[in-house]
Amino acid sequence: MAPGKKGILERLDAGEVVIGDGGFVFALEKRGYVKAGPWTPEAAAEHPEAVRQLHREFLRAGANVMQTFTFYASDDKLENRGNKLTFTGAQINEAACDLAREVANEGDALVAGGVCQTPSYLSCKSETDVKAILKKQLDVFVKKNVDFLIAEYFEHVEEAVWAVEVLKKTGKPIAACMCIGPEGDMHGVSPAECAVRLVKAGAQIVGINCHFDPMTCVKAVKMMKEGVEKAGLKAHYMVQPLAYHTPDCSCQGFIDLPEFPFGLEPRILSRWDMHKYAREAYNAGIHFIGGCCGFEPYHIRAVAEELAPERGFLPAASEKHGNWGAGLEMHTKPWVRARARRDYWENLKPASGRPQCPSMSVPDGWGVTKGDDALMQQKEATSEDQLKKLFDRSKN
Amino acid sequence: MAPGKKGILERLDAGEVVIGDGGFVFALEKRGYVKAGPWTPEAAAEHPEAVRQLHREFLRAGANVMQTFTFYASDDKLENRGNKLTFTGAQINEAACDLAREVANEGDALVAGGVCQTPSYLSCKSETDVKAILKKQLDVFVKKNVDFLIAEYFEHVEEAVWAVEVLKKTGKPIAACMCIGPEGDMHGVSPAECAVRLVKAGAQIVGINCHFDPMTCVKAVKMMKEGVEKAGLKAHYMVQPLAYHTPDCSCQGFIDLPEFPFGLEPRILSRWDMHKYAREAYNAGIHFIGGCCGFEPYHIRAVAEELAPERGFLPAASEKHGNWGAGLEMHTKPWVRARARRDYWENLKPASGRPQCPSMSVPDGWGVTKGDDALMQQKEATSEDQLKKLFDRSKN
Amino acid sequence: MAPGKKGILERLDAGEVVIGDGGFVFALEKRGYVKAGPWTPEAAAEHPEAVRQLHREFLRAGANVMQTFTFYASDDKLENRGNKLTFTGAQINEAACDLAREVANEGDALVAGGVCQTPSYLSCKSETDVKAILKKQLDVFVKKNVDFLIAEYFEHVEEAVWAVEVLKKTGKPIAACMCIGPEGDMHGVSPAECAVRLVKAGAQIVGINCHFDPMTCVKAVKMMKEGVEKAGLKAHYMVQPLAYHTPDCSCQGFIDLPEFPFGLEPRILSRWDMHKYAREAYNAGIHFIGGCCGFEPYHIRAVAEELAPERGFLPAASEKHGNWGAGLEMHTKPWVRARARRDYWENLKPASGRPQCPSMSVPDGWGVTKGDDALMQQKEATSEDQLKKLFDRSKN
Amino acid sequence: MAPGKKGILERLDAGEVVIGDGGFVFALEKRGYVKAGPWTPEAAAEHPEAVRQLHREFLRAGANVMQTFTFYASDDKLENRGNKLTFTGAQINEAACDLAREVANEGDALVAGGVCQTPSYLSCKSETDVKAILKKQLDVFVKKNVDFLIAEYFEHVEEAVWAVEVLKKTGKPIAACMCIGPEGDMHGVSPAECAVRLVKAGAQIVGINCHFDPMTCVKAVKMMKEGVEKAGLKAHYMVQPLAYHTPDCSCQGFIDLPEFPFGLEPRILSRWDMHKYAREAYNAGIHFIGGCCGFEPYHIRAVAEELAPERGFLPAASEKHGNWGAGLEMHTKPWVRARARRDYWENLKPASGRPQCPSMSVPDGWGVTKGDDALMQQKEATSEDQLKKLFDRSKN
Repeated sequence: MAPGKKGILERLDAGEVVIGDGGFVFALEKRGYVKAGPWTPEAAAEHPEAVRQLHREFLRAGANVMQTFTFYASDDKLENRGNKLTFTGAQINEAACDLAREVANEGDALVAGGVCQTPSYLSCKSETDVKAILKKQLDVFVKKNVDFLIAEYFEHVEEAVWAVEVLKKTGKPIAACMCIGPEGDMHGVSPAECAVRLVKAGAQIVGINCHFDPMTCVKAVKMMKEGVEKAGLKAHYMVQPLAYHTPDCSCQGFIDLPEFPFGLEPRILSRWDMHKYAREAYNAGIHFIGGCCGFEPYHIRAVAEELAPERGFLPAASEKHGNWGAGLEMHTKPWVRARARRDYWENLKPASGRPQCPSMSVPDGWGVTKGDDALMQQKEATSEDQLKKLFDRSKN
Repeated sequence: MAPGKKGILERLDAGEVVIGDGGFVFALEKRGYVKAGPWTPEAAAEHPEAVRQLHREFLRAGANVMQTFTFYASDDKLENRGNKLTFTGAQINEAACDLAREVANEGDALVAGGVCQTPSYLSCKSETDVKAILKKQLDVFVKKNVDFLIAEYFEHVEEAVWAVEVLKKTGKPIAACMCIGPEGDMHGVSPAECAVRLVKAGAQIVGINCHFDPMTCVKAVKMMKEGVEKAGLKAHYMVQPLAYHTPDCSCQGFIDLPEFPFGLEPRILSRWDMHKYAREAYNAGIHFIGGCCGFEPYHIRAVAEELAPERGFLPAASEKHGNWGAGLEMHTKPWVRARARRDYWENLKPASGRPQCPSMSVPDGWGVTKGDDALMQQKEATSEDQLKKLFDRSKN
Repeated sequence: MAPGKKGILERLDAGEVVIGDGGFVFALEKRGYVKAGPWTPEAAAEHPEAVRQLHREFLRAGANVMQTFTFYASDDKLENRGNKLTFTGAQINEAACDLAREVANEGDALVAGGVCQTPSYLSCKSETDVKAILKKQLDVFVKKNVDFLIAEYFEHVEEAVWAVEVLKKTGKPIAACMCIGPEGDMHGVSPAECAVRLVKAGAQIVGINCHFDPMTCVKAVKMMKEGVEKAGLKAHYMVQPLAYHTPDCSCQGFIDLPEFPFGLEPRILSRWDMHKYAREAYNAGIHFIGGCCGFEPYHIRAVAEELAPERGFLPAASEKHGNWGAGLEMHTKPWVRARARRDYWENLKPASGRPQCPSMSVPDGWGVTKGDDALMQQKEATSEDQLKKLFDRSKN
Repeated sequence: MAPGKKGILERLDAGEVVIGDGGFVFALEKRGYVKAGPWTPEAAAEHPEAVRQLHREFLRAGANVMQTFTFYASDDKLENRGNKLTFTGAQINEAACDLAREVANEGDALVAGGVCQTPSYLSCKSETDVKAILKKQLDVFVKKNVDFLIAEYFEHVEEAVWAVEVLKKTGKPIAACMCIGPEGDMHGVSPAECAVRLVKAGAQIVGINCHFDPMTCVKAVKMMKEGVEKAGLKAHYMVQPLAYHTPDCSCQGFIDLPEFPFGLEPRILSRWDMHKYAREAYNAGIHFIGGCCGFEPYHIRAVAEELAPERGFLPAASEKHGNWGAGLEMHTKPWVRARARRDYWENLKPASGRPQCPSMSVPDGWGVTKGDDALMQQKEATSEDQLKKLFDRSKN
């Protein structure tokens, strides 16, 4: 940590708002550096300038956390992606740490080393195997001296607890996030129970990331908070939701929506939706507030603008904005200048421009989870024959 | 031009597809470098790394044209934005040329110097004044030796013709685009008539950019083509539409939609919509195909993927994609792998996730154009009193 | 005509508003007396009490015209329906006249004998044959002494002109309606040209019925009016549109919508939509204003309530209503009483409660018209084999 | 009861399906005989031919129950409607019994005397007062010898129990329905608990009517059934839901929707929705299946057609239909004939034709119930001053 910077727990203990960054895999997919499907982060080593630029945009938008771009960077996942391997897992993790640190040093941000769920767990490998895989990423994080750790995107609390147990050995602060909604994890464990187990395992910060829209995630974190408090425990809370509206999701979240991942555009939240999210999260006692898939820098800026009264300052990128559309005062057309006011944007019900599309979908998850054959992960690309079976199954 | 590169007219004369880039002001607004309202491009000088990165992403996505980030960079507009001026117009235009050239040199792309409509015209200044303003940008383009010129985003064909007349003096190839739809320019001049006048003034390429969605723009360019052919003239055609669905727009396009510019998210086109657009444009005989506001690198990549058979190659960024979702074959969940096929995505009707929002809006343009008092542009920020009048007017 | 009643032309010449009734086939289909598909009116003879009751409801709602329930009651259509024939065409037409007269005598209404397009025309029979078929219905109308005649629901102006020529021989006033929109008849003849031909053939009243929503029909009648006036002719105008919103229809109207005829519910107009329709029609100079398929008595009452200032009285059924929801002042719940005001209902944007449905459909008309094999009409029920071919064709 | 007819309990004990009729107040409001707001049934005496006709249509559609048109026919309600009183409560109740009996005799239907919640209860009158009011209607039903009794449309289980206690004294079979959803009555009593109390009070049939759409009502009746069975009791079950889609309702149901009661059109269920409802209800073990507000005769016919295999016959009105659109085989247009099949209609997602409307609304109930001042009922019409207060309150 740079001299003079406060650590993550110091900030949260002091009641400060900590703003997270946005999701890297989706943002970089749109920019041409991440492949949807495998979703692996080799760009950290392959195209560092693109990753660095995205870090900078989130910093400029107000983020206090530069999370290493190491999502799905465990060795088993990298091998499983059915793709050629130009870089080792260690190289990718190290490059990601360097990029995060470089940009964190440009402002008031901390570096968080990130791990997530593994194909090993899904393929029913042992606790020892899963922990060994996670340990390899941690070794890099310790060597690069990240400021704290985030274990996130876990669908099963059992694996999340294993992850926290491994992370704990580093002595660094630990944040742990499930990617679940109010209905709980894939085996039906409630958010409250998940949170209690994670806190008992050693996480100082618990919460939710990904899979559901902001309001749903905030609701689930509230359930976590109630569970932790009822159990007489203490914790800080965080939330890093999708930037997509998902009122129609079932328990596995946006993965099951027919629009995932290439038709989600009409669901993208506006900056005004983000204002409401930030306020709701803050009011719920959640002080570490960031984003996941779908978040672009302007979404994080909106969170920072909403919470500017609490933080005491606007983010750098607000020089190119203006609260609640005030920049429109300088627009050429008078009727657009007339939109330069809060009540206009707060009350707007934006149209989709898609009159032949519905407003809600029917999720098509197959209701299977760890233990089901269809979920065994493999190194090889899916074969023609395997695909045919999948296509047929999906038509029923 | 780099040795060995073919010029824009050589390419079009040979029947080649030329892919344009996407809109910089909207993309950089989301990244925190452009202010909505003034929409001026000072970031070229202020934050060159951000502009360079966006150029690179479009190059990687398949673009053959790096358009200088000089939209609204005429001196009168820069002064009009009611903002402090850290950089001169010349500095911004020069920086933009350097960035475009630097990235164009990294691949098979040409540099196009761009000019657009001016506040001088809207404020009823003389032809001499308007031409003098445009001339200042051109001086930079000549000095920096751009490969060709684009006069774009004109709502009035009279001003567009003036621009072409100025550009013509450089001896460089000229592309000229109106930002109009099938109903014609703000004074009711039809697309066919606009095209004829532009060709007669000296433009070798004519077309449409901005303000309407892809299918509407293609329709308007078709009308231009018919007009030009009926007049016994010759030209090449281009189109650079919005990446927003706008079935509900009236003649002034998306500016009038209540969602402009901060609530357009649900209207964003998917990559599959872009496939349809690229095919439709190509089939209409339009060979210079790009994008404007709302286009992100993945949208241009989709255009390049659709036209890969015609061009003979895939763009660099396709290494992180896979035609029609093929990358999903490597997804963890089997029901997502089952989406790795063309017919799935071609037929998807994506939901908005916004059940309390409509699918179409009522545009609220005030039906005024050049000559109306409300359109006189001023250097000063809109005053409180002026804003109050606007808010009141907008509520009626 | 009862002594003391003014005839249809007297009323229109005097500038009076004449309110028509609503569509019988759709209303009686919902009540269980008409079969969708054949759409024939044998109920006039089979279930007279049901037909009489519907007449009464329209009279009570304010209608000045009791149209005989003789839609599709030409002998060729009755034979073509592939159904057993319990009643002769003459019996049905006579029963319908008696019912209309009985109820007309209960109030200030006229009896209009109605004819419509024939399967003979669609099957390419000769002018002589088509006229002979129509003549048989007319003989009944003359015998029963109806007050005037309506030739309506013609998709081809050629057949409509033939009908008017036959009707003219009775000496009774003639109203003639096409079931077309602004794009014109099935052979592309514009509304203006259709109207001119009908007036020249002898119709004193021309207009549009069925196939499109009120605003579209009013638009088409305006085009008729302009055509007639431009041709230096004189006429009165009428409109009897659908009570379904059809913004997505192509030239053949609601028949082509995928929802026709058993899924049209979400498109039904509210009473407030009818207020707007009535005003728009009246302002357009159309003074014979009624309804067609989808109109229920309360829709006609809304037309009569909107035009009460012009007519000078409210319809009988308004004793069970109250302008603009005023009856709600007596509702149990206070928040419903708060809806007892015009601006509430005028501005309401009613939700569909169908989040998985779109707002617009893609019409699936096959683009065929008279002369195409698929349109030859037959007496026999469609065979299994014929149906299979149709199902296959519809899936492509 | 006519000789040879089985009573309601005999039928249900034998496992027979009993089909109810549809809602009279909404159907007759559209026909011009009931006033929305007061919703009182004076038409039974004022316009008997209209009421008789509607009974006949439901009988023809397959209904086995002719419910007397005595909704809100308690003396306190009739007085409360702020309207002149031409008929006494006794006259209205007697006329309604006579009409129901006359039509029931025309087919296989029973007469059910109906009572519902009272303004006396809402205005905090005593148990004695409320029971006395209900007793007056019962006296008529006993005199007219109805076949059984239905106590329906109760928002508070306390009042429903009082009603059952009064009804029990007649010795006739009793069905009791709450107008609640899965969240329970207005004081939060669960459907399970409501059902248990009603059965203990003496109802042999319990269920839900009105306020919610079919699937929601079936869900609530299932909860009732589970509650009754868990309590070791026995009962038959009935359901008479709305014919409106209400996915967005809160606990007070459709009354709170902004569309109530004059903008509900886009929510009307299609006949195919009714097939799904009938099957779902039957599968849930509910054997008395009918409808409430919004049900037209064709909706009841659809229920009867879906359950024709279980009942062993089609209803009379099916002579004018044909299962799953088969009547369309005789349509003029071949592409409409191609819709004459079950899978077409089962899978159709009907469009609203309202692109500027949302699919879901925000209910605006004020969260008040019995005991709140705003709910005190009065005889006088709401005064101007009272209305102004309501309008102002509704705008906040």
